[in-house]
Amino acid sequence: MDLHIDGARLLRRLDELALIAPITGPNGERGNARLALTDEDRAGRDLVVSWMRDLGLDVSVDGIGNVIAVMTGHPGVAPVMTGSHIDTVATGGRFDGNLGVLAGLEVIESVIEAGIKLERPLAVGFFTDEEGARFAPDMLGSLVYAGGLGLEEALDIVSIDGARLGDELEKIGYQGGAPCPGPAPHAFVELHIEQGPVLEIEGFRLGAVTGVQGISWTRVTLSGQSNHAGTTPMQMRRDPAAAMIRMGAALQEIVADVGSPQVGTIGSIELKPNLINVVPARATFTVDLRHTDERTLRDVERRLRVEMERIAAEHGVELSTESLARFEPVVFDERVVSLVERAAIERDLSVMRLPSGAGHDAQMMARLCPTAMIFTPSRGGVSHNPAEHTDDDDLVAGCQVLADVMLALAVNAWMEE
Amino acid sequence: MDLHIDGARLLRRLDELALIAPITGPNGERGNARLALTDEDRAGRDLVVSWMRDLGLDVSVDGIGNVIAVMTGHPGVAPVMTGSHIDTVATGGRFDGNLGVLAGLEVIESVIEAGIKLERPLAVGFFTDEEGARFAPDMLGSLVYAGGLGLEEALDIVSIDGARLGDELEKIGYQGGAPCPGPAPHAFVELHIEQGPVLEIEGFRLGAVTGVQGISWTRVTLSGQSNHAGTTPMQMRRDPAAAMIRMGAALQEIVADVGSPQVGTIGSIELKPNLINVVPARATFTVDLRHTDERTLRDVERRLRVEMERIAAEHGVELSTESLARFEPVVFDERVVSLVERAAIERDLSVMRLPSGAGHDAQMMARLCPTAMIFTPSRGGVSHNPAEHTDDDDLVAGCQVLADVMLALAVNAWMEE
Repeated sequence: MDLHIDGARLLRRLDELALIAPITGPNGERGNARLALTDEDRAGRDLVVSWMRDLGLDVSVDGIGNVIAVMTGHPGVAPVMTGSHIDTVATGGRFDGNLGVLAGLEVIESVIEAGIKLERPLAVGFFTDEEGARFAPDMLGSLVYAGGLGLEEALDIVSIDGARLGDELEKIGYQGGAPCPGPAPHAFVELHIEQGPVLEIEGFRLGAVTGVQGISWTRVTLSGQSNHAGTTPMQMRRDPAAAMIRMGAALQEIVADVGSPQVGTIGSIELKPNLINVVPARATFTVDLRHTDERTLRDVERRLRVEMERIAAEHGVELSTESLARFEPVVFDERVVSLVERAAIERDLSVMRLPSGAGHDAQMMARLCPTAMIFTPSRGGVSHNPAEHTDDDDLVAGCQVLADVMLALAVNAWMEE
Repeated sequence: MDLHIDGARLLRRLDELALIAPITGPNGERGNARLALTDEDRAGRDLVVSWMRDLGLDVSVDGIGNVIAVMTGHPGVAPVMTGSHIDTVATGGRFDGNLGVLAGLEVIESVIEAGIKLERPLAVGFFTDEEGARFAPDMLGSLVYAGGLGLEEALDIVSIDGARLGDELEKIGYQGGAPCPGPAPHAFVELHIEQGPVLEIEGFRLGAVTGVQGISWTRVTLSGQSNHAGTTPMQMRRDPAAAMIRMGAALQEIVADVGSPQVGTIGSIELKPNLINVVPARATFTVDLRHTDERTLRDVERRLRVEMERIAAEHGVELSTESLARFEPVVFDERVVSLVERAAIERDLSVMRLPSGAGHDAQMMARLCPTAMIFTPSRGGVSHNPAEHTDDDDLVAGCQVLADVMLALAVNAWMEE
């Protein structure tokens, strides 16, 4: 069964969807701003749904607005599913999410055109509010689909602009009747841009994604004593900024000691009063830790905690911490990861196994069925930015491998392992 | 010549001046907001000038609004001068500046009452815009008096609220005809609160101030590459916040290595975009370095520069620095410092030699004549805050020693050394 997808058709659909709510980067790059459940999101949804209907697919909308289109003719048989999201952040690129949805459509259209008969139907969906940029948390729609969050609770979430999710969903006409949680597919495979620099720097065309890193987000607040920076000798200070610097250095040492794939980031810092000649009264900063192994992540959290307590005591500052997010790592199904890898190799595409550093809908679907992802390279590792870019050849290659993997899954190839 | 000042009268005047433009701290502390050349500043000036006139002093106002009151009867003889400022920061205390001016008035009133005849007249002044909170730079009035800044240039300075200094000065009626630069006094002694914690912690009633620390202010900007904090491996990052943390740690090491009185402070930090899950594109921070010895200060600047260049290269970030202020240390006249020390000991007041970490009008006057300062303790080292506090006994003790020193200077005591 050798199916060739139509790369030009995929690229045309990507272009057409990108015309809805376009934004322009400083160097003329084309991006999009379609925040979840806005009029712009509705326009994007309407276009994609029209394409789904054009293909004669069975389109359903569930209670949280997830839209799933299934090939007809296989009543009661769990589909091989793909999908992603079409909402974007406020300064979004053209590929993040959209690629996975439109590649799924392309796979299904190619199968229909080729007249291939499958044991299982194929399905493609887009999930509500993957970005979490308007309604927290991110991956909201797939979380509700997988049963990780109750529908009523989700509908009551209030956006950053003060609107209730349920009201906004109704307003754009996408509160459907399909049940939440949704039915488990046979398997789930998501194609997505990497959003990181690894494939580009390492020189691979595709990534076989082995899982999603666990995430630990903490806000640290250090309270000391504000003083005159000229008149207060060093040994008489209780300087929260000085303590923060030492904690940051300790974080760097721990992360270096653990080594890859451990990452640790201080991305946000606020000093009060933040004046050149005043020892601050307070320093607030965030720590973002990620690792693919839960035990290692916990160990890093513990080691950092010990260091922070020691440093706070030495500097005479008060330490308080608040967990802002904590997700355990997700490990994808080895059989599906292996299928992705082999499919790429059979197409003469260089492929690298790597974990995802960002969250994706696939990690929620992994609760329901065997799941993996395919990554395409992101130029410069840039995403959430109009400058987000993947070469056309790589977009098409990713879609082709998605087709190959979905067809293999539809004939239960992975059961043969 | 044993003169006793009237401590109660000094405290009453401090209370009365503090009624003009009062503010209240979170625990009911009484402070003041009299920014330079505002209506509040005018009200304060009018009150102090009325007291000067009540004593029959010869009051002159110069082109930048400095007000100087001299005892009459000694034409052509350079006075022994004291003084400070009565402008405050927006969240000012009751003593910063005001103490020195009103203590000078008290000394002169006591001398007049006691009928003491002096070889030289005494003078007390208040200088315009010492705080620099409304018009930069600070110590503006005394700088112009000492000839460090031309009058016309100073009058053209624009405030943080967009007003021209000369216009504001005229509006409040304090652009006078006395020349700038002003005449050199015989000697200058300023009484001021310490604004630091040293006297309190070390357990001394008074400080004999040996000079003013040199100041080096630098703004450092590090430019790197903004990336996703989850998807960008550590070794592929160009993280300006990580580089800043290591530069801050290097600063701490250098300052600790040099030891007291070296101080170094990072009081202000800005990250862009300052988000928990984004490796910043840019980090901007300030470095405040102070030392009493110019060669040491230069050496610390050089060592920090070498470390910053090395760290920037290691992290692949671009380093740029901007000098925001650079003042060489001021060394006060040993004879006058010694007079302060002996006067305190003769009054059974414990006294400690120490440098000033903050800038004061006395450092400008030191360009013109033998100069020193007297410090009183600041509770908790707090200033520029309604919680600023010095015990009444210490305020009075400081004024008494000021009187003793001024009288000694007026009979040329220090010439006998």
